[in-house]
Amino acid sequence: MKARIHVTLKNGVLDPQGKAIQHALAALGFSGVDDARQGKFIELDLTESDTAKARATVEEMCKKLLANTVIENYAIDLVE
Amino acid sequence: MKARIHVTLKNGVLDPQGKAIQHALAALGFSGVDDARQGKFIELDLTESDTAKARATVEEMCKKLLANTVIENYAIDLVE
Repeated sequence: MKARIHVTLKNGVLDPQGKAIQHALAALGFSGVDDARQGKFIELDLTESDTAKARATVEEMCKKLLANTVIENYAIDLVE
Repeated sequence: MKARIHVTLKNGVLDPQGKAIQHALAALGFSGVDDARQGKFIELDLTESDTAKARATVEEMCKKLLANTVIENYAIDLVE
């Protein structure tokens, strides 16, 4: 089973990477970008085949290592 | 319109960040992770409302700035 995890900065947290992207796009002539935010995308191959157990494990991984829950949100998608 | 872009390393390209995640998870006692890959997730707020035009623009942004197409793949999702 695969877990696809998105880790994104919470609203209101300054995102310098996103701002850099926005300015670089503007410098390249791409107008019409109101906002840009950058997050992380993590894909895990799990041996676990039970969806509920896998979700619980990945949730714990996010809390302990993958996301800084003070400033970041995470979203988990499980794919067979 | 929002564009959600995933930039991931191509298969076969070494992913030290992913390997670091895998080892750190193992060190924390999470067994059962066969592989871990890390990519980038970029969210853009676009003023463009036409889906076809927005996709063409974002495709160009990916080629010119957001992804290194020699070693990275990108996927674009457009959301109203």
